[in-house]
Amino acid sequence: MREILITNDDSYTSKGIKVIIKLLAEYGNVTVVAPKEPQSGKSVAVTLNAPLRFNLHETYTHTNGNKVTIYTLTGTPSDCVKMAMNDLFVNDLPDLLVSGINHGSNASSGALYSGTLSAAIEGTLYNIPSIGVSVDDHSADADFSAVETILPKILDNYFKTELDKGVYLNINFPKCSPDAIKGVKIARQGKGRWTKEFERRIDPHGKPYYWMSGEFINTDTETTDADHILLENKYVTIVPHKIDTTDYNSVKLLESNWIL
Amino acid sequence: MREILITNDDSYTSKGIKVIIKLLAEYGNVTVVAPKEPQSGKSVAVTLNAPLRFNLHETYTHTNGNKVTIYTLTGTPSDCVKMAMNDLFVNDLPDLLVSGINHGSNASSGALYSGTLSAAIEGTLYNIPSIGVSVDDHSADADFSAVETILPKILDNYFKTELDKGVYLNINFPKCSPDAIKGVKIARQGKGRWTKEFERRIDPHGKPYYWMSGEFINTDTETTDADHILLENKYVTIVPHKIDTTDYNSVKLLESNWIL
Repeated sequence: MREILITNDDSYTSKGIKVIIKLLAEYGNVTVVAPKEPQSGKSVAVTLNAPLRFNLHETYTHTNGNKVTIYTLTGTPSDCVKMAMNDLFVNDLPDLLVSGINHGSNASSGALYSGTLSAAIEGTLYNIPSIGVSVDDHSADADFSAVETILPKILDNYFKTELDKGVYLNINFPKCSPDAIKGVKIARQGKGRWTKEFERRIDPHGKPYYWMSGEFINTDTETTDADHILLENKYVTIVPHKIDTTDYNSVKLLESNWIL
Repeated sequence: MREILITNDDSYTSKGIKVIIKLLAEYGNVTVVAPKEPQSGKSVAVTLNAPLRFNLHETYTHTNGNKVTIYTLTGTPSDCVKMAMNDLFVNDLPDLLVSGINHGSNASSGALYSGTLSAAIEGTLYNIPSIGVSVDDHSADADFSAVETILPKILDNYFKTELDKGVYLNINFPKCSPDAIKGVKIARQGKGRWTKEFERRIDPHGKPYYWMSGEFINTDTETTDADHILLENKYVTIVPHKIDTTDYNSVKLLESNWIL
Protein backbone atom coordinates (compact mmCIF):
# COMPACT_ATOMS: atom_id res chain seq x y z
CA MET A 1 0.00 0.00 0.00
CA ARG A 2 1.35 3.42 -0.97
CA GLU A 3 1.49 6.17 1.66
CA ILE A 4 1.01 9.58 0.07
CA LEU A 5 1.68 12.98 1.66
CA ILE A 6 -0.20 16.00 0.29
CA THR A 7 0.21 19.70 0.97
CA ASN A 8 -0.26 22.97 -0.93
CA ASP A 9 0.05 26.72 -0.50
CA ASP A 10 -3.56 27.77 -1.01
CA SER A 11 -4.62 26.20 2.35
CA TYR A 12 -6.63 23.12 3.23
CA THR A 13 -9.89 24.80 2.14
CA SER A 14 -8.94 25.28 -1.54
CA LYS A 15 -10.65 23.45 -4.37
CA GLY A 16 -7.28 22.32 -5.77
CA ILE A 17 -6.28 20.32 -2.72
CA LYS A 18 -9.71 18.67 -2.53
CA VAL A 19 -9.39 17.52 -6.14
CA ILE A 20 -5.89 16.10 -5.65
CA ILE A 21 -6.86 14.31 -2.41
CA LYS A 22 -9.68 12.52 -4.23
CA LEU A 23 -7.44 11.67 -7.18
CA LEU A 24 -4.52 10.38 -5.11
CA ALA A 25 -6.70 8.36 -2.69
CA GLU A 26 -7.07 6.02 -5.69
CA TYR A 27 -3.34 5.22 -5.31
CA GLY A 28 -2.96 4.76 -1.55
CA ASN A 29 -3.58 6.11 1.93
CA VAL A 30 -3.45 9.90 1.96
CA THR A 31 -2.08 12.11 4.73
CA VAL A 32 -2.63 15.83 4.26
CA VAL A 33 -0.72 18.48 6.23
CA ALA A 34 -1.84 21.77 4.73
CA PRO A 35 -1.51 25.41 5.71
CA LYS A 36 -4.43 26.79 7.71
CA GLU A 37 -4.19 30.10 5.82
CA PRO A 38 -3.15 30.84 2.19
CA GLN A 39 0.65 31.00 1.70
CA SER A 40 1.06 32.02 -1.94
CA GLY A 41 4.41 33.52 -2.91
CA LYS A 42 6.06 32.25 0.27
CA SER A 43 8.82 30.31 -1.53
CA VAL A 44 10.81 28.04 0.81
CA ALA A 45 10.06 30.31 3.78
CA VAL A 46 10.07 28.68 7.20
CA THR A 47 8.53 30.02 10.41
CA LEU A 48 11.39 30.71 12.81
CA ASN A 49 9.94 33.46 14.97
CA ALA A 50 6.37 32.41 15.80
CA PRO A 51 4.86 29.32 17.43
CA LEU A 52 2.84 26.96 15.23
CA ARG A 53 -0.47 25.19 15.90
CA PHE A 54 -0.92 21.72 14.42
CA ASN A 55 -4.38 20.11 14.47
CA LEU A 56 -6.18 17.05 13.16
CA HIS A 57 -8.99 18.36 10.99
CA GLU A 58 -10.73 15.30 9.54
CA THR A 59 -10.35 11.57 8.85
CA TYR A 60 -12.44 9.45 6.50
CA THR A 61 -12.33 6.37 4.31
CA HIS A 62 -12.21 6.79 0.53
CA THR A 63 -14.67 4.75 -1.59
CA ASN A 64 -11.94 2.14 -2.27
CA GLY A 65 -11.17 1.71 1.43
CA ASN A 66 -8.03 3.87 1.50
CA LYS A 67 -7.67 6.18 4.50
CA VAL A 68 -7.60 9.96 4.24
CA THR A 69 -6.30 11.98 7.22
CA ILE A 70 -6.22 15.78 7.09
CA TYR A 71 -4.18 18.01 9.41
CA THR A 72 -3.82 21.79 9.39
CA LEU A 73 -0.76 23.80 10.39
CA THR A 74 -0.55 27.55 10.97
CA GLY A 75 2.62 27.78 8.84
CA THR A 76 4.14 27.68 5.37
CA PRO A 77 4.15 24.73 2.93
CA SER A 78 7.76 24.01 3.91
CA ASP A 79 6.73 24.01 7.60
CA CYS A 80 3.92 21.53 6.71
CA VAL A 81 6.33 19.01 5.17
CA LYS A 82 8.73 19.39 8.09
CA MET A 83 5.88 18.83 10.58
CA ALA A 84 4.66 15.75 8.68
CA MET A 85 8.17 14.27 8.72
CA ASN A 86 8.87 15.10 12.35
CA ASP A 87 5.51 14.09 13.80
CA LEU A 88 3.78 11.62 11.45
CA PHE A 89 6.37 9.84 9.27
CA VAL A 90 9.03 9.40 11.92
CA ASN A 91 10.12 5.89 10.90
CA ASP A 92 9.06 5.49 7.26
CA LEU A 93 9.19 8.02 4.44
CA PRO A 94 5.99 8.57 2.44
CA ASP A 95 6.17 6.92 -1.02
CA LEU A 96 5.14 10.15 -2.70
CA LEU A 97 4.66 13.83 -1.88
CA VAL A 98 2.33 15.93 -4.03
CA SER A 99 1.91 19.66 -3.48
CA GLY A 100 -1.09 21.34 -5.07
CA ILE A 101 -3.13 21.58 -7.11
CA ASN A 102 -2.08 25.22 -7.09
CA HIS A 103 -4.52 27.85 -8.31
CA GLY A 104 -2.10 29.67 -10.63
CA SER A 105 0.92 28.79 -12.80
CA ASN A 106 4.32 28.05 -11.30
CA ALA A 107 6.15 28.06 -14.63
CA SER A 108 9.27 30.13 -15.51
CA SER A 109 10.72 32.14 -12.61
CA GLY A 110 7.39 31.66 -10.82
CA ALA A 111 9.09 28.43 -9.69
CA LEU A 112 11.46 30.52 -7.53
CA TYR A 113 8.66 32.23 -5.58
CA SER A 114 6.34 29.25 -5.41
CA GLY A 115 5.06 28.01 -2.07
CA THR A 116 3.71 24.95 -3.88
CA LEU A 117 7.16 23.94 -5.11
CA SER A 118 8.82 24.76 -1.80
CA ALA A 119 6.99 21.75 -0.38
CA ALA A 120 8.46 19.62 -3.17
CA ILE A 121 11.92 21.04 -2.39
CA GLU A 122 11.44 20.20 1.28
CA GLY A 123 10.25 16.69 0.38
CA THR A 124 13.30 16.23 -1.84
CA LEU A 125 15.61 17.23 1.03
CA TYR A 126 13.98 14.33 2.92
CA ASN A 127 14.46 11.97 -0.09
CA ILE A 128 10.71 11.69 -0.73
CA PRO A 129 9.75 11.48 -4.44
CA SER A 130 8.12 14.92 -4.77
CA ILE A 131 5.91 16.67 -7.31
CA GLY A 132 4.27 20.10 -7.53
CA VAL A 133 1.09 20.41 -9.61
CA SER A 134 -0.40 23.74 -10.72
CA VAL A 135 -3.08 25.02 -13.08
CA ASP A 136 -2.71 28.37 -14.86
CA ASP A 137 -5.92 29.74 -13.34
CA HIS A 138 -6.00 31.83 -10.16
CA SER A 139 -9.77 31.69 -9.67
CA ALA A 140 -11.09 29.95 -6.54
CA ASP A 141 -13.34 27.80 -8.73
CA ALA A 142 -10.62 26.88 -11.29
CA ASP A 143 -11.38 23.96 -13.64
CA PHE A 144 -9.18 20.97 -12.70
CA SER A 145 -10.70 18.45 -15.11
CA ALA A 146 -7.56 18.38 -17.29
CA VAL A 147 -5.54 17.35 -14.21
CA GLU A 148 -8.04 14.61 -13.42
CA THR A 149 -7.78 13.30 -16.99
CA ILE A 150 -4.02 13.62 -17.62
CA LEU A 151 -2.22 13.40 -14.26
CA PRO A 152 -2.88 9.62 -13.90
CA LYS A 153 -0.99 9.02 -17.18
CA ILE A 154 1.92 11.12 -15.89
CA LEU A 155 1.92 9.24 -12.56
CA ASP A 156 2.01 5.88 -14.39
CA ASN A 157 5.28 7.00 -15.98
CA TYR A 158 6.56 8.52 -12.75
CA PHE A 159 6.09 5.34 -10.71
CA LYS A 160 8.18 3.40 -13.28
CA THR A 161 11.07 5.91 -13.22
CA GLU A 162 13.94 6.27 -10.79
CA LEU A 163 14.81 9.96 -10.86
CA ASP A 164 18.13 11.16 -9.48
CA LYS A 165 18.09 11.97 -5.78
CA GLY A 166 17.66 15.69 -5.40
CA VAL A 167 15.24 16.08 -8.32
CA TYR A 168 11.55 17.05 -8.10
CA LEU A 169 8.94 17.68 -10.77
CA ASN A 170 7.08 20.91 -11.51
CA ILE A 171 3.94 20.09 -13.51
CA ASN A 172 1.85 22.95 -14.91
CA PHE A 173 -1.52 22.62 -16.65
CA PRO A 174 -2.94 25.28 -19.01
CA LYS A 175 -6.26 26.92 -18.28
CA CYS A 176 -8.52 24.91 -20.58
CA SER A 177 -10.70 21.83 -20.86
CA PRO A 178 -9.03 18.41 -21.34
CA ASP A 179 -10.09 18.44 -25.03
CA ALA A 180 -8.26 21.70 -25.75
CA ILE A 181 -4.90 20.42 -24.44
CA LYS A 182 -2.39 19.92 -27.26
CA GLY A 183 -0.15 17.44 -25.43
CA VAL A 184 2.27 16.87 -22.55
CA LYS A 185 5.89 18.11 -22.89
CA ILE A 186 9.04 17.66 -20.86
CA ALA A 187 10.35 21.22 -20.61
CA ARG A 188 12.87 23.50 -18.90
CA GLN A 189 12.35 26.47 -16.57
CA GLY A 190 11.61 29.34 -18.97
CA LYS A 191 13.19 32.75 -18.63
CA GLY A 192 11.06 35.68 -17.56
CA ARG A 193 10.40 38.09 -14.73
CA TRP A 194 7.88 40.62 -13.50
CA THR A 195 7.82 44.34 -14.27
CA LYS A 196 5.77 47.31 -12.94
CA GLU A 197 5.75 45.44 -9.66
CA PHE A 198 4.09 47.94 -7.32
CA GLU A 199 0.98 50.04 -7.27
CA ARG A 200 1.44 53.21 -5.20
CA ARG A 201 -1.54 54.54 -3.25
CA ILE A 202 -2.08 57.30 -0.71
CA ASP A 203 -3.66 56.47 2.65
CA PRO A 204 -6.35 58.69 4.32
CA HIS A 205 -3.52 60.41 6.25
CA GLY A 206 -1.71 61.48 3.07
CA LYS A 207 1.09 58.90 3.29
CA PRO A 208 2.06 56.53 0.48
CA TYR A 209 1.84 52.76 0.61
CA TYR A 210 2.48 50.08 -2.00
CA TRP A 211 0.71 46.92 -3.19
CA MET A 212 2.70 44.33 -5.09
CA SER A 213 1.16 43.63 -8.48
CA GLY A 214 3.16 43.45 -11.73
CA GLU A 215 3.10 42.08 -15.24
CA PHE A 216 5.07 39.02 -16.33
CA ILE A 217 7.49 39.60 -19.22
CA ASN A 218 9.07 36.87 -21.29
CA THR A 219 12.87 37.23 -21.60
CA ASP A 220 13.45 33.88 -23.29
CA THR A 221 14.78 33.67 -26.83
CA GLU A 222 14.31 29.92 -27.26
CA THR A 223 10.64 29.09 -27.34
CA THR A 224 10.49 25.37 -28.11
CA ASP A 225 11.23 24.08 -24.61
CA ALA A 226 10.51 27.02 -22.24
CA ASP A 227 7.76 25.87 -19.89
CA HIS A 228 5.82 29.15 -19.68
CA ILE A 229 5.61 29.44 -23.47
CA LEU A 230 4.51 25.82 -23.95
CA LEU A 231 1.94 26.37 -21.21
CA GLU A 232 0.62 29.45 -23.00
CA ASN A 233 0.31 27.30 -26.12
CA LYS A 234 -1.92 24.82 -24.24
CA TYR A 235 0.64 22.12 -23.45
CA VAL A 236 0.95 20.46 -20.04
CA THR A 237 4.59 21.01 -19.00
CA ILE A 238 6.79 18.84 -16.80
CA VAL A 239 10.08 20.37 -15.61
CA PRO A 240 12.52 18.34 -13.49
CA HIS A 241 14.18 20.76 -11.05
CA LYS A 242 17.07 20.09 -8.69
CA ILE A 243 17.74 21.27 -5.16
CA ASP A 244 21.48 21.63 -5.83
CA THR A 245 21.55 25.02 -7.55
CA THR A 246 25.36 25.17 -7.90
CA ASP A 247 26.45 26.33 -11.35
CA TYR A 248 29.27 23.85 -12.00
CA ASN A 249 30.48 25.65 -15.17
CA SER A 250 31.12 28.77 -13.09
CA VAL A 251 32.87 26.66 -10.40
CA LYS A 252 35.41 25.63 -13.08
CA LEU A 253 35.72 29.19 -14.43
CA LEU A 254 36.39 30.71 -11.01
CA GLU A 255 38.74 27.91 -9.99
CA SER A 256 40.95 28.48 -13.03
CA ASN A 257 40.86 32.29 -13.13
CA TRP A 258 40.61 33.67 -9.65
CA ILE A 259 43.66 34.50 -7.53
CA LEU A 260 42.64 33.99 -3.91
CA MET B 1 31.40 55.83 -10.62
CA ARG B 2 29.90 52.51 -9.46
CA GLU B 3 26.33 52.45 -8.18
CA ILE B 4 25.90 49.74 -5.54
CA LEU B 5 22.63 48.37 -4.15
CA ILE B 6 22.68 46.77 -0.69
CA THR B 7 20.05 44.81 1.19
CA ASN B 8 19.93 42.00 3.75
CA ASP B 9 17.49 39.90 5.75
CA ASP B 10 18.47 40.92 9.28
CA SER B 11 17.02 44.45 8.82
CA TYR B 12 18.62 47.87 8.43
CA THR B 13 19.59 47.96 12.11
CA SER B 14 21.91 44.93 12.03
CA LYS B 15 25.65 45.17 12.54
CA GLY B 16 26.30 43.16 9.36
CA ILE B 17 24.65 45.66 7.03
CA LYS B 18 26.46 48.57 8.70
CA VAL B 19 29.83 46.86 8.11
CA ILE B 20 29.08 46.13 4.44
CA ILE B 21 27.80 49.68 3.78
CA LYS B 22 31.08 51.11 5.07
CA LEU B 23 33.15 48.59 3.10
CA LEU B 24 31.29 49.07 -0.20
CA ALA B 25 31.16 52.86 0.03
CA GLU B 26 34.88 52.60 -0.81
CA TYR B 27 33.84 51.31 -4.26
CA GLY B 28 31.01 53.67 -5.22
CA ASN B 29 27.75 55.34 -4.26
CA VAL B 30 25.66 53.09 -2.05
CA THR B 31 21.88 52.77 -2.05
CA VAL B 32 20.43 50.60 0.71
CA VAL B 33 16.87 49.25 0.64
CA ALA B 34 16.65 47.01 3.69
CA PRO B 35 13.81 45.31 5.56
CA LYS B 36 12.44 47.29 8.48
CA GLU B 37 12.07 44.07 10.52
CA PRO B 38 14.20 40.86 10.52
CA GLN B 39 13.29 38.44 7.69
CA SER B 40 15.48 35.40 8.35
CA GLY B 41 14.40 32.15 6.73
CA LYS B 42 12.06 33.95 4.36
CA SER B 43 13.64 32.49 1.19
CA VAL B 44 12.39 34.20 -2.01
CA ALA B 45 9.08 35.09 -0.33
CA VAL B 46 7.26 38.14 -1.69
CA THR B 47 4.51 40.12 0.02
CA LEU B 48 1.36 39.68 -2.05
CA ASN B 49 -1.35 40.17 0.55
CA ALA B 50 -0.31 43.18 2.63
CA PRO B 51 0.52 46.80 1.75
CA LEU B 52 4.16 47.91 2.11
CA ARG B 53 5.62 51.11 3.57
CA PHE B 54 8.78 52.48 1.94
CA ASN B 55 10.70 55.28 3.67
CA LEU B 56 13.92 57.23 3.33
CA HIS B 57 15.81 56.64 6.56
CA GLU B 58 19.14 58.46 6.20
CA THR B 59 21.54 60.02 3.69
CA TYR B 60 25.18 60.94 4.27
CA THR B 61 28.51 61.33 2.52
CA HIS B 62 31.22 58.71 3.06
CA THR B 63 34.74 59.92 3.96
CA ASN B 64 35.81 59.56 0.29
CA GLY B 65 32.90 61.66 -0.97
CA ASN B 66 30.69 58.76 -2.11
CA LYS B 67 27.00 59.07 -1.27
CA VAL B 68 25.16 56.66 1.03
CA THR B 69 21.34 56.62 0.93
CA ILE B 70 19.39 54.29 3.21
CA TYR B 71 15.71 53.32 2.73
CA THR B 72 13.61 50.90 4.77
CA LEU B 73 10.78 48.71 3.51
CA THR B 74 8.25 46.76 5.58
CA GLY B 75 8.81 43.64 3.45
CA THR B 76 11.10 40.75 2.55
CA PRO B 77 14.59 40.98 0.97
CA SER B 78 13.06 40.07 -2.39
CA ASP B 79 10.49 42.88 -1.95
CA CYS B 80 13.40 45.27 -1.19
CA VAL B 81 15.19 44.52 -4.46
CA LYS B 82 11.94 44.80 -6.41
CA MET B 83 11.19 48.17 -4.78
CA ALA B 84 14.71 49.45 -5.51
CA MET B 85 14.36 48.47 -9.15
CA ASN B 86 10.84 49.84 -9.58
CA ASP B 87 11.31 53.10 -7.71
CA LEU B 88 15.02 54.04 -7.62
CA PHE B 89 16.86 52.35 -10.52
CA VAL B 90 14.19 52.82 -13.15
CA ASN B 91 16.51 53.65 -16.05
CA ASP B 92 19.92 52.22 -15.10
CA LEU B 93 20.75 48.96 -13.37
CA PRO B 94 23.03 49.13 -10.32
CA ASP B 95 26.56 47.87 -11.11
CA LEU B 96 26.47 45.50 -8.14
CA LEU B 97 24.01 44.10 -5.60
CA VAL B 98 25.32 42.81 -2.28
CA SER B 99 23.03 41.19 0.28
CA GLY B 100 24.32 40.84 3.83
CA ILE B 101 26.42 40.57 5.77
CA ASN B 102 24.13 37.89 7.17
CA HIS B 103 24.46 36.92 10.82
CA GLY B 104 24.55 33.14 10.27
CA SER B 105 25.77 30.70 7.61
CA ASN B 106 23.91 30.23 4.33
CA ALA B 107 25.94 27.22 3.23
CA SER B 108 24.56 23.81 2.14
CA SER B 109 20.75 23.63 1.95
CA GLY B 110 20.64 26.77 4.06
CA ALA B 111 20.94 28.46 0.65
CA LEU B 112 17.40 27.30 -0.15
CA TYR B 113 15.82 28.99 2.88
CA SER B 114 18.02 32.07 2.88
CA GLY B 115 16.46 35.51 2.77
CA THR B 116 19.94 36.92 2.14
CA LEU B 117 20.36 34.90 -1.05
CA SER B 118 16.80 35.58 -2.18
CA ALA B 119 17.87 39.18 -2.72
CA ALA B 120 20.74 37.91 -4.90
CA ILE B 121 18.28 35.72 -6.83
CA GLU B 122 15.99 38.71 -7.35
CA GLY B 123 18.94 40.85 -8.47
CA THR B 124 19.98 38.13 -10.92
CA LEU B 125 16.46 38.07 -12.41
CA TYR B 126 17.05 41.77 -13.10
CA ASN B 127 20.52 41.06 -14.61
CA ILE B 128 22.36 42.83 -11.79
CA PRO B 129 25.69 41.19 -10.76
CA SER B 130 24.61 39.86 -7.36
CA ILE B 131 26.36 38.47 -4.29
CA GLY B 132 25.22 37.21 -0.89
CA VAL B 133 27.68 37.45 2.01
CA SER B 134 27.25 35.63 5.34
CA VAL B 135 29.25 34.87 8.46
CA ASP B 136 28.75 31.64 10.40
CA ASP B 137 27.83 33.48 13.60
CA HIS B 138 24.24 34.26 14.62
CA SER B 139 25.12 36.66 17.42
CA ALA B 140 24.02 40.28 17.09
CA ASP B 141 27.61 41.40 17.75
CA ALA B 142 29.24 38.90 15.32
CA ASP B 143 32.87 39.57 14.36
CA PHE B 144 33.03 40.71 10.72
CA SER B 145 36.76 41.53 10.62
CA ALA B 146 37.51 38.55 8.32
CA VAL B 147 35.01 39.96 5.81
CA GLU B 148 36.65 43.37 6.01
CA THR B 149 40.07 41.82 5.36
CA ILE B 150 39.20 39.25 2.68
CA LEU B 151 36.12 40.47 0.78
CA PRO B 152 38.08 43.25 -1.04
CA LYS B 153 40.36 40.57 -2.57
CA ILE B 154 37.31 38.59 -3.70
CA LEU B 155 35.71 41.73 -5.17
CA ASP B 156 38.92 42.52 -7.12
CA ASN B 157 38.54 39.14 -8.84
CA TYR B 158 34.78 39.55 -9.24
CA PHE B 159 35.03 42.90 -11.01
CA LYS B 160 37.42 41.35 -13.57
CA THR B 161 35.13 38.38 -14.32
CA GLU B 162 32.13 38.14 -16.60
CA LEU B 163 29.95 35.47 -15.02
CA ASP B 164 27.17 33.85 -17.03
CA LYS B 165 23.85 35.66 -16.89
CA GLY B 166 21.69 33.93 -14.31
CA VAL B 167 24.54 33.21 -11.87
CA TYR B 168 25.00 34.75 -8.40
CA LEU B 169 27.58 34.15 -5.70
CA ASN B 170 27.02 32.79 -2.20
CA ILE B 171 30.02 33.73 -0.02
CA ASN B 172 30.25 32.32 3.50
CA PHE B 173 32.85 33.25 6.13
CA PRO B 174 33.72 31.02 9.10
CA LYS B 175 33.33 32.28 12.64
CA CYS B 176 36.91 33.26 13.41
CA SER B 177 39.46 36.04 13.26
CA PRO B 178 41.14 36.87 9.91
CA ASP B 179 44.35 35.16 11.13
CA ALA B 180 42.60 31.83 11.77
CA ILE B 181 41.20 31.59 8.23
CA LYS B 182 42.88 28.83 6.22
CA GLY B 183 42.07 30.17 2.78
CA VAL B 184 39.36 30.97 0.23
CA LYS B 185 37.83 28.12 -1.80
CA ILE B 186 35.49 27.94 -4.78
CA ALA B 187 32.97 25.31 -3.66
CA ARG B 188 29.61 23.69 -4.39
CA GLN B 189 26.37 23.66 -2.40
CA GLY B 190 26.95 20.91 0.16
CA LYS B 191 24.37 18.26 0.99
CA GLY B 192 22.62 18.36 4.34
CA ARG B 193 19.32 19.04 6.04
CA TRP B 194 17.81 19.66 9.43
CA THR B 195 16.45 17.06 11.84
CA LYS B 196 14.45 17.25 15.12
CA GLU B 197 12.90 20.36 13.66
CA PHE B 198 10.24 21.20 16.25
CA GLU B 199 10.07 21.66 19.97
CA ARG B 200 6.60 20.83 21.35
CA ARG B 201 5.31 22.86 24.29
CA ILE B 202 2.01 23.09 26.16
CA ASP B 203 0.31 26.47 26.55
CA PRO B 204 -1.32 27.63 29.85
CA HIS B 205 -4.64 26.30 28.50
CA GLY B 206 -3.28 22.76 28.06
CA LYS B 207 -2.98 22.91 24.27
CA PRO B 208 0.18 22.04 22.32
CA TYR B 209 2.17 24.46 20.18
CA TYR B 210 5.45 24.06 18.30
CA TRP B 211 8.62 26.13 17.86
CA MET B 212 10.86 25.41 14.90
CA SER B 213 14.38 24.59 16.03
CA GLY B 214 16.40 21.64 14.69
CA GLU B 215 19.90 20.30 14.25
CA PHE B 216 21.77 20.37 10.95
CA ILE B 217 22.96 16.97 9.71
CA ASN B 218 25.54 16.46 7.00
CA THR B 219 24.40 14.02 4.27
CA ASP B 220 27.34 14.65 1.95
CA THR B 221 29.82 11.89 1.15
CA GLU B 222 32.30 14.06 -0.74
CA THR B 223 33.97 16.46 1.63
CA THR B 224 36.60 18.24 -0.44
CA ASP B 225 34.30 20.73 -2.18
CA ALA B 226 31.10 20.85 -0.05
CA ASP B 227 30.73 24.43 1.16
CA HIS B 228 29.43 23.67 4.65
CA ILE B 229 32.32 21.30 5.38
CA LEU B 230 34.97 23.70 4.09
CA LEU B 231 33.33 26.43 6.16
CA GLU B 232 33.52 24.24 9.26
CA ASN B 233 37.20 23.75 8.49
CA LYS B 234 37.75 27.54 8.54
CA TYR B 235 37.78 28.24 4.80
CA VAL B 236 35.89 31.12 3.20
CA THR B 237 33.62 29.49 0.59
CA ILE B 238 32.38 30.93 -2.70
CA VAL B 239 29.59 29.02 -4.46
CA PRO B 240 28.25 30.19 -7.82
CA HIS B 241 24.50 29.39 -7.90
CA LYS B 242 22.10 29.68 -10.82
CA ILE B 243 18.50 30.78 -10.97
CA ASP B 244 17.65 28.16 -13.62
CA THR B 245 17.17 25.10 -11.43
CA THR B 246 16.16 22.76 -14.29
CA ASP B 247 17.90 19.38 -14.09
CA TYR B 248 18.86 18.94 -17.75
CA ASN B 249 20.00 15.32 -17.27
CA SER B 250 16.50 14.42 -16.09
CA VAL B 251 14.97 16.35 -19.01
CA LYS B 252 16.82 13.98 -21.36
CA LEU B 253 15.88 10.90 -19.30
CA LEU B 254 12.18 11.74 -19.24
CA GLU B 255 12.13 12.75 -22.91
CA SER B 256 13.53 9.38 -23.98
CA ASN B 257 11.60 7.14 -21.56
CA TRP B 258 8.18 8.59 -20.86
CA ILE B 259 5.14 7.80 -22.97
CA LEU B 260 2.91 10.88 -22.87
